[in-house]
Amino acid sequence: MSHRIENSDSVVPSIEDVRKAHERIKPYIHRTPILTSSFMNELSGAELFFKCENFQKAGAFKVRGASNAVFGLSDEAAKKGVATHSSGNHALSLSYAAGRRGIPCTVVMPRTAPQAKKDAVKGYGGVIVECEPSTTSREATFAEVVAETGAEFVHPYNDIRVITGQATCSLELQEDVRDLDAVVAPIGGGGMISGTCLTLSNLAPSIDIFAAEPAQADDACRSFKAGHIIADDSPTTVADGLKVPLKENTWHFVSHHVSDIQTASEEEIIAAMKLTWQRMKIVIEPSCAVPLAVILKNPDVYRSKRVGVIITGGNVDMDKLPWII
Amino acid sequence: MSHRIENSDSVVPSIEDVRKAHERIKPYIHRTPILTSSFMNELSGAELFFKCENFQKAGAFKVRGASNAVFGLSDEAAKKGVATHSSGNHALSLSYAAGRRGIPCTVVMPRTAPQAKKDAVKGYGGVIVECEPSTTSREATFAEVVAETGAEFVHPYNDIRVITGQATCSLELQEDVRDLDAVVAPIGGGGMISGTCLTLSNLAPSIDIFAAEPAQADDACRSFKAGHIIADDSPTTVADGLKVPLKENTWHFVSHHVSDIQTASEEEIIAAMKLTWQRMKIVIEPSCAVPLAVILKNPDVYRSKRVGVIITGGNVDMDKLPWII
Repeated sequence: MSHRIENSDSVVPSIEDVRKAHERIKPYIHRTPILTSSFMNELSGAELFFKCENFQKAGAFKVRGASNAVFGLSDEAAKKGVATHSSGNHALSLSYAAGRRGIPCTVVMPRTAPQAKKDAVKGYGGVIVECEPSTTSREATFAEVVAETGAEFVHPYNDIRVITGQATCSLELQEDVRDLDAVVAPIGGGGMISGTCLTLSNLAPSIDIFAAEPAQADDACRSFKAGHIIADDSPTTVADGLKVPLKENTWHFVSHHVSDIQTASEEEIIAAMKLTWQRMKIVIEPSCAVPLAVILKNPDVYRSKRVGVIITGGNVDMDKLPWII
Repeated sequence: MSHRIENSDSVVPSIEDVRKAHERIKPYIHRTPILTSSFMNELSGAELFFKCENFQKAGAFKVRGASNAVFGLSDEAAKKGVATHSSGNHALSLSYAAGRRGIPCTVVMPRTAPQAKKDAVKGYGGVIVECEPSTTSREATFAEVVAETGAEFVHPYNDIRVITGQATCSLELQEDVRDLDAVVAPIGGGGMISGTCLTLSNLAPSIDIFAAEPAQADDACRSFKAGHIIADDSPTTVADGLKVPLKENTWHFVSHHVSDIQTASEEEIIAAMKLTWQRMKIVIEPSCAVPLAVILKNPDVYRSKRVGVIITGGNVDMDKLPWII
């Protein structure tokens, strides 16, 4: 009964695939806690359950997908290592997972990327190959890396192994919290939201899945309304994990299973981020403040409901906080 | 077998008193989680167990002592309310506890205290009476408040009910983590460290208790060496919860049960605070970064040991972070 995703070589995974992925990656990830806050409940009028992937290994949910890809490789393929192009949490996570398996990980990154990000990847054992800050240079450099090493390309989100790994996050949420009415997750390339759709459409199809997006990078919202992928040209937002466009594999899940995509302004995102730090005492990235921002902005949608909120990561430059000029 | 504390009207509480306090305050406090971090373990060479009172109600451990005092009052005494002078976490905590019991709480605070602190106390239902920023004015104003209301004075730390309440923190730590070799807590007035001593000297006397203090406010360290209380004159430190001196009730526990008092510089405290935010993704106050700072500074003392670390609170002014000028 498996069916192929439109415009893709991939087959839609089953919930059994998600369970297998969970077993595969369990030794390498944390089962992250779910926090509640009476303050946030009063403020929102809803009952919120925060799934805290900021406490995840390497500081973000991306380690789930990366670990699933790395540990799903045959021994022969694994020997040649893995490679990706990313300057964000996926690069860290893939380096971490490859390190745990004891195989090489090459990350192509613009030479202009912040030194802190390069250092973080190196800290997890990744090897950085620098390119010029252009798509042409990145693609050419990446092709060279793969040609030389034979490394397996693991895309940050448009990879069904990665999506299946991210799906384990909602599997845990669904096991730990009963009777949710809705789940809200940020949307950028759509890896986390696709994983959420994959799990919940199988296990609890009555749960509404909402995607939260920065208004200044609202390509997914516009795609959703238009019925096809629209890619933004270099959007600017404080939620820097959410700038990338949907691709065919994530579009499949978004277009089939998401109830709505809601947006928040930069000011709303920063306020929600600061409020979470102040009241919940946890460090979260701007990207994962977007769900709280849209919940506070749309009280009629969420009032009196039990709502899962995916806190996707906590990797923040402590010297550049968006509310401090 | 009860014995009186020297120079004090108080009797040393028993472990049974601590257990009764725990039962009394349980409905009003969180059982806070204990976090571990493989990064921090590698860095320190020890196995660290962070007892996270930054996730406590009102954002700090002080709610334990305040709740024990408030809910231990007779109905008749409670009617008249409680009062204190503090501009810190104790004021918040006493206001919170009084609110839960439905009795008034008056807080005497200098008119020059930050508006944010006044707002926070009001947010928990406390009534603020302002005084001039001098000890004379504070004492006179406080005497007036008590004369008018008949309110019960709950001192921030030199109160045996408060110390017994703080002792419930180590009771939970001791239940949740087996075979600790040492526990490190910050020391200011000594309420938390006294509670730690009270519990551990009864339940696990082999555990070393270390107090961590800012070098710029090292009155407790000098008192410990001298064998009597030495009070500093207006010390200045980023760890603003730790400026106050020991008093007779806390001196009793410190002088009898603390193994050593270790100090850290302002730079070391700020670095430990920032590192905790970056790597553990939790918001902690400068005061409770002092234990990690002394652990990292004294590797020979802690190497290969299982160490409990009391994270005392997470109330931070997000607009004024000490590593951002």
